[in-house]
Amino acid sequence: MRLLLTGFLFIASSARAQIDSVFFRRVFNEALENGQAYSRLGELCKTIGSRLSGSPQADKAVAWGKQMLSGYGFDSVYLQPVMVPRWERSKTEALSFTSAVFNTAIKGEKLQDFNCEAFEELPLKPSKNHKIPAVALGGSVGTSGKLQAGIVSVHSDAQLDSLGKAGVLKGKMVLLNRPFPETYLNTFRAYGACVGQRVNGASKATAFGAVAVLVRSMSNRCDLHAHTGVMIYDDKQSKIPAMAVATAVANLLDKLSQQDPNLRISMELGCQSMPDAPSANVVAETRGSNYPKSIITFGGHFDSWDQGEGAHDDGAGCMHAFEALRLLKSIGYQPRHTLRCVWWMNEENGLRGATEYAAVAGKNNEKHLAALESDRGGFTPRGFGVDSVFLPKVLKYKALLDAYSIGEIEKGGGGADIGPIRKVNPNAVLVGFIPDSQRYFDVHHSETDVFESVNKRELHLGAAAVAVMIAILDQELD
Amino acid sequence: MRLLLTGFLFIASSARAQIDSVFFRRVFNEALENGQAYSRLGELCKTIGSRLSGSPQADKAVAWGKQMLSGYGFDSVYLQPVMVPRWERSKTEALSFTSAVFNTAIKGEKLQDFNCEAFEELPLKPSKNHKIPAVALGGSVGTSGKLQAGIVSVHSDAQLDSLGKAGVLKGKMVLLNRPFPETYLNTFRAYGACVGQRVNGASKATAFGAVAVLVRSMSNRCDLHAHTGVMIYDDKQSKIPAMAVATAVANLLDKLSQQDPNLRISMELGCQSMPDAPSANVVAETRGSNYPKSIITFGGHFDSWDQGEGAHDDGAGCMHAFEALRLLKSIGYQPRHTLRCVWWMNEENGLRGATEYAAVAGKNNEKHLAALESDRGGFTPRGFGVDSVFLPKVLKYKALLDAYSIGEIEKGGGGADIGPIRKVNPNAVLVGFIPDSQRYFDVHHSETDVFESVNKRELHLGAAAVAVMIAILDQELD
Repeated sequence: MRLLLTGFLFIASSARAQIDSVFFRRVFNEALENGQAYSRLGELCKTIGSRLSGSPQADKAVAWGKQMLSGYGFDSVYLQPVMVPRWERSKTEALSFTSAVFNTAIKGEKLQDFNCEAFEELPLKPSKNHKIPAVALGGSVGTSGKLQAGIVSVHSDAQLDSLGKAGVLKGKMVLLNRPFPETYLNTFRAYGACVGQRVNGASKATAFGAVAVLVRSMSNRCDLHAHTGVMIYDDKQSKIPAMAVATAVANLLDKLSQQDPNLRISMELGCQSMPDAPSANVVAETRGSNYPKSIITFGGHFDSWDQGEGAHDDGAGCMHAFEALRLLKSIGYQPRHTLRCVWWMNEENGLRGATEYAAVAGKNNEKHLAALESDRGGFTPRGFGVDSVFLPKVLKYKALLDAYSIGEIEKGGGGADIGPIRKVNPNAVLVGFIPDSQRYFDVHHSETDVFESVNKRELHLGAAAVAVMIAILDQELD
Repeated sequence: MRLLLTGFLFIASSARAQIDSVFFRRVFNEALENGQAYSRLGELCKTIGSRLSGSPQADKAVAWGKQMLSGYGFDSVYLQPVMVPRWERSKTEALSFTSAVFNTAIKGEKLQDFNCEAFEELPLKPSKNHKIPAVALGGSVGTSGKLQAGIVSVHSDAQLDSLGKAGVLKGKMVLLNRPFPETYLNTFRAYGACVGQRVNGASKATAFGAVAVLVRSMSNRCDLHAHTGVMIYDDKQSKIPAMAVATAVANLLDKLSQQDPNLRISMELGCQSMPDAPSANVVAETRGSNYPKSIITFGGHFDSWDQGEGAHDDGAGCMHAFEALRLLKSIGYQPRHTLRCVWWMNEENGLRGATEYAAVAGKNNEKHLAALESDRGGFTPRGFGVDSVFLPKVLKYKALLDAYSIGEIEKGGGGADIGPIRKVNPNAVLVGFIPDSQRYFDVHHSETDVFESVNKRELHLGAAAVAVMIAILDQELD
């Protein structure tokens, strides 16, 4: 009897599950009726908040994550230690300007997005000192006391080069003011076209004698929220401080800099880099029935910038992954391979968690069949980016995916945190989860990336989408 | 020379335009770079606000609309007069309860969506009088002074019937508490499954001796915002007052009504119906080059409920239509048929504008080839519902529509405001614009339906989607 039963179980568990309309319905019903992602994200955002690498909040979040995940009965939950860089913002963080042609304090209510062009109508009167909504970019050095300079606004790398070569930038603050190309349907493409000025702009400007840079916030919106993000110094150049200014303010400074040759900017920054700090990736697994040593990894990054609560970036991605693992367990899905939810640490300013994850995988001779990343927010799901080798397998499910409005399949997977896996498993299939992109850069890296900006159903539909894609990978890969 | 030129122009204008990738790109570029819908919606919402039929704000909005549209150089802009019903909310509008087992005042911060289940943990102590977030349903009669009664919560029509027949509802307030079925992907389907209790619930309850009804707000969210909406009395029954309560409050009252046999609700309402008032549909047209007497109509409804600013419902739809007309003109598109943007008055509580529009069309022997309605909010566009006869024509453009993420094509067009057109032109093709539905009932008919809940790019992408569909109708119909 025992032999028979074992034999029966073996056959049952080795048979492939049908990923059909019944399976989709069960996953989506569970997500929409009993979804846990939203309430858990609320806990994370409201009891801990932002989670900059190496910060006390990041430590708290890691402890919370391990404890929370341990309550769901997964086969194992553990931390993977990793040292992370630590950069810290200071209370000393101020930007202001004086101008002979502008005296109206910048008031949010006058610059609402719907009439962002209203600068045109602001009164131009004698000068005062105006505080500017601005935040240091991550990684920036501080100033030594108060730094004061005139300002030059540039709109392209070519303009930076030509003004630099003409000596115009010497001793100036440079406003790197290239706006998002609004005609790109996918806002990530617009981000890609502009983010270089944030990441490398300071060192480019230093080469021409600039004393600091202000970077137009990476956002589609015209408003008064400054968006931080990583900047990297070229070691061959001296380091100058860098701040992000809100898009509406970038427009204003651009205009003022043309009208007022005596426009002066004053910056004071106390931010600093500190020694590396211990932290961890957070991992939860369900072991595979057939191939426990073959792994399908999926996750997001657990660190965030220190503005807002890291709700969409990337609390949402972490919750997508956790909830996908829970959904599949909850409906009784028996995975053939080991399913591993990973919350990588330090995506924003170092990628140490992802690098360590891949290094450990290499050391342990782990075989990763596939890796899926969710790092585009918790918005309504649209589809997936998929490695071209795996594309034909996914397209078999196109009609089903379309029925759940997640059938926009693009060629090309990948993502910052799953990229390193390819170094140890060159054939790992990479998949990117793609939610709607229109609102992402409204909140990205800013004080508005809070729990209230996340919609429960959109988040839960995203988690269900990730879950069905994980099941497709589990069934179609060997 | 003159004859030749005329001949050339005639050929040029009678040739069909190519609705191809170049055309799509031009429409979308213009919408995303120079879109007017968002700033105009901001003006409407922030300088006028809500626009209940027959109200002074609705009058102001009509005047604003005509003037605004007149600034764009369309071939004609005019008002179409119509008498509308007038119902008015009063400052006297209060709901409260006393309970021996509950004394904590309802505080928003304790009932945030992320822990809406926290009612479980609220302290249960001696009674006080608690104010409830609630609003009269549109069309409700008022109370005569203060109405006090016990409460019975029901979750289905069947339960209402059985409790009613058992005499349990006599002298009671009835809480009509059927929640949205969360597993429906499209939230409009969930609305359709529940809205009957709001529209007809009062008269059903009256038949069993109830003295008032409270209706669970039509929303997916668990929160403290009450959502109003139309209710209609059965003339054979006596009229009892009806209010909407927030979903979180419906949950609370449901629970309390089970635990506290002495739970008492107190209601005071001063709302009233008044004589019909003059109002108007607002119309803007571009005349067709080839068939000026054949009309393609598209629009939304210009009235709104008196909560919030009617931003998504249906300011967005009106702006979609105006912007679609502007986009086509702006890129130099020569329509074969007359394109008519209509902002119908009184969709919410009477449909008088749409009814009058169809009546005038009949009187004037107008030939409507097609009508498109946008009344599902200004969210990111997904596709269209299309009459089955026209479906094959639309599917010719499926690849192009997919390239702009607007290729979700459903069978079945229609909508409240365009339905009446069929009475005069039975063959008119009806099309419904379909944006993403997940967030719509978060704001619908509530104080949260304000301009800030609208995203500029989502709104402009919707307008571009409407514009290309209008061009497809114009080219494919004769």
